[in-house]
Amino acid sequence: MATVNDILNFLETLAPRSMKMDWDNVGLLCGSKHNPVTKILVALDPFEGVCREATETGAELIVTHHPLIFQAPTSITDETSIGRSIMRLCRHGISAVNAHTNLDQAPGGVNDVLAERLGLKNIQIVDPIDAPIPYGLLRMGEAESQPLEKFLATVKDALGCDGLRYVDSGKPVRHVAVGGGSCAGAMQEALDAGCDTFVTADVKYNQFWDAKDLGLNLIDAGHFYTENPVVPVLAGKLQAAFPEITVKVSETHHDCMKFY
Amino acid sequence: MATVNDILNFLETLAPRSMKMDWDNVGLLCGSKHNPVTKILVALDPFEGVCREATETGAELIVTHHPLIFQAPTSITDETSIGRSIMRLCRHGISAVNAHTNLDQAPGGVNDVLAERLGLKNIQIVDPIDAPIPYGLLRMGEAESQPLEKFLATVKDALGCDGLRYVDSGKPVRHVAVGGGSCAGAMQEALDAGCDTFVTADVKYNQFWDAKDLGLNLIDAGHFYTENPVVPVLAGKLQAAFPEITVKVSETHHDCMKFY
Amino acid sequence: MATVNDILNFLETLAPRSMKMDWDNVGLLCGSKHNPVTKILVALDPFEGVCREATETGAELIVTHHPLIFQAPTSITDETSIGRSIMRLCRHGISAVNAHTNLDQAPGGVNDVLAERLGLKNIQIVDPIDAPIPYGLLRMGEAESQPLEKFLATVKDALGCDGLRYVDSGKPVRHVAVGGGSCAGAMQEALDAGCDTFVTADVKYNQFWDAKDLGLNLIDAGHFYTENPVVPVLAGKLQAAFPEITVKVSETHHDCMKFY
Amino acid sequence: MATVNDILNFLETLAPRSMKMDWDNVGLLCGSKHNPVTKILVALDPFEGVCREATETGAELIVTHHPLIFQAPTSITDETSIGRSIMRLCRHGISAVNAHTNLDQAPGGVNDVLAERLGLKNIQIVDPIDAPIPYGLLRMGEAESQPLEKFLATVKDALGCDGLRYVDSGKPVRHVAVGGGSCAGAMQEALDAGCDTFVTADVKYNQFWDAKDLGLNLIDAGHFYTENPVVPVLAGKLQAAFPEITVKVSETHHDCMKFY
Amino acid sequence: MATVNDILNFLETLAPRSMKMDWDNVGLLCGSKHNPVTKILVALDPFEGVCREATETGAELIVTHHPLIFQAPTSITDETSIGRSIMRLCRHGISAVNAHTNLDQAPGGVNDVLAERLGLKNIQIVDPIDAPIPYGLLRMGEAESQPLEKFLATVKDALGCDGLRYVDSGKPVRHVAVGGGSCAGAMQEALDAGCDTFVTADVKYNQFWDAKDLGLNLIDAGHFYTENPVVPVLAGKLQAAFPEITVKVSETHHDCMKFY
Amino acid sequence: MATVNDILNFLETLAPRSMKMDWDNVGLLCGSKHNPVTKILVALDPFEGVCREATETGAELIVTHHPLIFQAPTSITDETSIGRSIMRLCRHGISAVNAHTNLDQAPGGVNDVLAERLGLKNIQIVDPIDAPIPYGLLRMGEAESQPLEKFLATVKDALGCDGLRYVDSGKPVRHVAVGGGSCAGAMQEALDAGCDTFVTADVKYNQFWDAKDLGLNLIDAGHFYTENPVVPVLAGKLQAAFPEITVKVSETHHDCMKFY
Repeated sequence: MATVNDILNFLETLAPRSMKMDWDNVGLLCGSKHNPVTKILVALDPFEGVCREATETGAELIVTHHPLIFQAPTSITDETSIGRSIMRLCRHGISAVNAHTNLDQAPGGVNDVLAERLGLKNIQIVDPIDAPIPYGLLRMGEAESQPLEKFLATVKDALGCDGLRYVDSGKPVRHVAVGGGSCAGAMQEALDAGCDTFVTADVKYNQFWDAKDLGLNLIDAGHFYTENPVVPVLAGKLQAAFPEITVKVSETHHDCMKFY
Repeated sequence: MATVNDILNFLETLAPRSMKMDWDNVGLLCGSKHNPVTKILVALDPFEGVCREATETGAELIVTHHPLIFQAPTSITDETSIGRSIMRLCRHGISAVNAHTNLDQAPGGVNDVLAERLGLKNIQIVDPIDAPIPYGLLRMGEAESQPLEKFLATVKDALGCDGLRYVDSGKPVRHVAVGGGSCAGAMQEALDAGCDTFVTADVKYNQFWDAKDLGLNLIDAGHFYTENPVVPVLAGKLQAAFPEITVKVSETHHDCMKFY
Repeated sequence: MATVNDILNFLETLAPRSMKMDWDNVGLLCGSKHNPVTKILVALDPFEGVCREATETGAELIVTHHPLIFQAPTSITDETSIGRSIMRLCRHGISAVNAHTNLDQAPGGVNDVLAERLGLKNIQIVDPIDAPIPYGLLRMGEAESQPLEKFLATVKDALGCDGLRYVDSGKPVRHVAVGGGSCAGAMQEALDAGCDTFVTADVKYNQFWDAKDLGLNLIDAGHFYTENPVVPVLAGKLQAAFPEITVKVSETHHDCMKFY
Repeated sequence: MATVNDILNFLETLAPRSMKMDWDNVGLLCGSKHNPVTKILVALDPFEGVCREATETGAELIVTHHPLIFQAPTSITDETSIGRSIMRLCRHGISAVNAHTNLDQAPGGVNDVLAERLGLKNIQIVDPIDAPIPYGLLRMGEAESQPLEKFLATVKDALGCDGLRYVDSGKPVRHVAVGGGSCAGAMQEALDAGCDTFVTADVKYNQFWDAKDLGLNLIDAGHFYTENPVVPVLAGKLQAAFPEITVKVSETHHDCMKFY
Repeated sequence: MATVNDILNFLETLAPRSMKMDWDNVGLLCGSKHNPVTKILVALDPFEGVCREATETGAELIVTHHPLIFQAPTSITDETSIGRSIMRLCRHGISAVNAHTNLDQAPGGVNDVLAERLGLKNIQIVDPIDAPIPYGLLRMGEAESQPLEKFLATVKDALGCDGLRYVDSGKPVRHVAVGGGSCAGAMQEALDAGCDTFVTADVKYNQFWDAKDLGLNLIDAGHFYTENPVVPVLAGKLQAAFPEITVKVSETHHDCMKFY
Repeated sequence: MATVNDILNFLETLAPRSMKMDWDNVGLLCGSKHNPVTKILVALDPFEGVCREATETGAELIVTHHPLIFQAPTSITDETSIGRSIMRLCRHGISAVNAHTNLDQAPGGVNDVLAERLGLKNIQIVDPIDAPIPYGLLRMGEAESQPLEKFLATVKDALGCDGLRYVDSGKPVRHVAVGGGSCAGAMQEALDAGCDTFVTADVKYNQFWDAKDLGLNLIDAGHFYTENPVVPVLAGKLQAAFPEITVKVSETHHDCMKFY
């Protein structure tokens, strides 16, 4: 029977640990690699609701993008969300593994999926890191030349998000960079690569103004909506590799943030 | 004739330097305190557009909330926005003064104005710092008990913003904390003070989830829209104190970020 | 029914959190303060064997001196001892609380118990910290003036340890300082307080030589043997305070180190 | 018409940016690379007097050795010398460029000019950094073997300085190292290269004694006097490269320090 | 006549400076490399007793493993052991040289001698550092498969120590790693290299438990007893290389720590 | 017979250790406080020449302003000046004590002596530190209003130095601050205290320009010449306190730096 270790080994082929950023925490963060696995729950985050869903659906493993443990905890109690999640997983013998910045940066990962979902053509890695398999954070691709307004509609529709926040640099959309999650700090890279438009999330006030100053259309499409597209893709790859396991995408995990 | 120094002294009565945070940069950031002033332009930010408006309207002084210089520049050239602003101000002999976190924290400042604009009652400083004139970052006040949806409409209407982002903790709105700009890091303080709802800006993905975990309605009403209400108030106080000076609120400075 | 919180409150009276060292981690480190408690297991360490004994004896709470979590873990897996302990506690719904340096320093704590066990008279705190209830790390007391050899026999007998390591400064034993666990770094303090002999543990090569240079008899009586005497005392106080709870001292936890 | 950018490009051929030290600030520090240039003022320092001379002579560009901005300023006001300089330059649309440690280290730069001015033969780079064009801080060369007293007269005469400060190691002068400005920290390098005499500036009390201990004649010939010789050389090269531009050496900038 | 420098050069062939750890202090730590040498005293430590023995036996040089100066002293007075040692050496014109971590790591050094003394076969460097002459901290070798108890007797007998402290992992002894002095921090390396048993010193309470958790027999045979075997070997090599010098092993230097 | 300790106790009354700066090293830096003293050599520095003079004149103690050990040495050998000094002192059983920044700051110390030597009236501590006996680094006093040129002659004559370096701010001399040694970093303090002129040493190029910008006459009268006046005063006080001891001022120690 497949074990947690088999899943870890498979994830290593999709998003090698060597592709993660230095500060990141990835791999087996809770449980045991020796545990047998018959059901996997895949989700963007290992939050409490996802852990509860795992116990309710009988999954022995959750596979997520974000790590269960980011700031190492000095206690595991029911007074914190991370404590409640770990206590629940341990109580039910559920393991938790994740691929975070390694999945952002790997070919076929978070950002390739995002670029494809937006319908970009000739997708390339921006500033690829030289390695046997080149990788990197941002992707860029070409869109039909169009007014920003039209592209905003495409983004909203493709990602299924309720709202977008953006700044209009006055340029039409033609060369688009994407960075799922909080990548606004990389806007100069996108610009240097020749892009006129950058889709990312968690953009702050001064960053919108920086983009305007730099002449870059900057679109905040939401952290959840720019990263979640990888979840069903990842689930599909796991299912294909382990046909005997039931692989489910979380049905309960949605963005908690809403627009009004 | 009034000089820049007279304005600085008046601002010191509204928002004493002793109330600023350690890392902040406030006061006279460009020009000369000896310059005479006949026209003042007041705005939230000393961005290029505001500097241009100052030259076009003949103002000798701009008074803003955000500082002209935040990250000290190693060059002053037309290749950066800050360089272009400083060069323009110097070329036209315009001075720039600001009150930032001292105005956030001072009684009657950014956050008192915000709380009043939202119609809160019994407005108090959250965790006031003990001083002859107590001050502090957040304000809290009471609203008529109401569903969150209703309060969202009030916020949007009162601040005139195009959109809001929020998380719904399931609680009705009764005790509301406010912190204009990027204050989500203080959400625990708001909670500890007994609030069910917190209005601030620049909220990140994980902060919305933290609020949900903590049982706090968190509303991101925009950095510009939560802080800009202080601008006409500040202009009014300047005008009242210096009737011989023409005090104008910037007509060109709006939020560059839009919702879609 | 008593809860974990009641135990925490009682421990706070014995060893207030304010008496701990800055770097220390004490209190509820695993579980829930709301859990009911009918059986407590008390031990020096919350190691795997103790956690296993707790599950086997049906305890809902372990109370230890050393903290369950010292170096905050970036994962909770069966590949580490700390991971296995936490997983076991969570699986069985057992909570873990501890009092570490607060119990070392509190009156009636680790070092008072050790000093009494060694039969010292006129026991005092060395360099007491000025507070409503003075406290401090080391204790000192008087012994009948005797050759070191004789005192070594007393120590070995009183603590029940298989062996001692020591350096003989040539002085007879009269004024004795004690510091359970790794306190050799405080030998100058013991000397300055007028002691000729210091009982502690985990002494390194250069520290034995330092003691010889300073003219101090230094005795390493073992980390376990110098701190474990507090365990039955602590259990007794818990039992007296909570007569309805079954309080047990661990039967399986002994020092793993042996002499040959 | 030539622009500031053309001057920058030409300076890059004389003193490439890659030759500067990590902490240094060189290149365009004020103004715009797009500005046309018909008159250049060249000086060692971009101090207020030099900026005033630029405005009075109609120069659109000042070229200096020392940077206009060293410690990045948190305000640009008339209360500081740097603020007054920047305000003046901006008011008059004058740009400022500089080549500092890159010009110290480049072949033909500050230290080669100094070595030649002192009449040294077989001038070489001390500890050259391996690069397509080797470079380095100090230069060394040979002098006719002579008593130190005689060489002091040569230095004073060649550099035109009013006074020298020195320590006499008792050795005759034969192999001389030079480092314009504050290079006394490199005296061991000069010694290791086989020099008996080192000409530099800004020497402190303990450094004179260190030199005496090491057996090195150490001569402080003044920061201004050891670096200023490069100024007319640099002006000459600029003039030759841009015959249509009027290139002037500052007539007002002298050392403010005097001997008594 | 041989000088201190000749001894330094010879030690460089046995334990090159390039093999030392970054933080270490080795070589000539007191005196003059130009001093003639007719008598050398070799000891593990340059403590006061050894310095006194040097003066009493007329040695001009002491050669030790541990450095005379570890923590650089801010004064040289008779109030500290290091001060008294240095004052004595200087008063008598005695030089002090040492080889510390370079001798630990060099082939034929501390750990090879220790491994041989314990009768291990097929001795190898654990995790050798790639260099023309590979080197490294730990050594490993094979023993006849035996119960731990039997091996403990061998260690005690071979090293001549009065006592051992150890933890029994339950495994028989077959593959043994050794690291003289305080090497318990490297226990994972020993385990990864396939060892079941590790002989080192200065082991702390938690390290014994770590070893037990990891399934490693860990033996603390004393800092002195695990390193001192190299002393006569080193003396022998010096004597062979310098037959005209009298090379003596210290007769007074023993471990000050005793077992009871 | 008087001992080194008696001298230390007396120095504590002149320049208490509590008045030193945090980073400083003062008191007994070499030798033994128990040593008897019949002859003391007093000098500004404990350099090799002074140590040699001590051995030649039979002094058992040198008392200096600058510390023997500033940068703690990792070896004591004849390859460094500090090593040679310490070896010489130890060889001859000479102790070394010093009072550095405590003597700079104490009433009656370096800077009071300097101010008096310059003939200033109404001498006061600049920015005195509040303590039972107030103290501080700089002194200020009044001079007859005079042209700078005249005051320069006074300084040169009073201190006996061969040359001065200075910048002329254009102001007459009336209120003079003094700081022996390297105190140019405190020029703003001198200015804020109302001084027009500041006498110190080790002034760098940019500091002369800063003084000119600030409108302060800055005079570099040499590190040796501004501090050495305290030496005979200190010797006199020692002689008065210990009439039975021969107290000598060094005859060989002069500034090694010369003007040309």
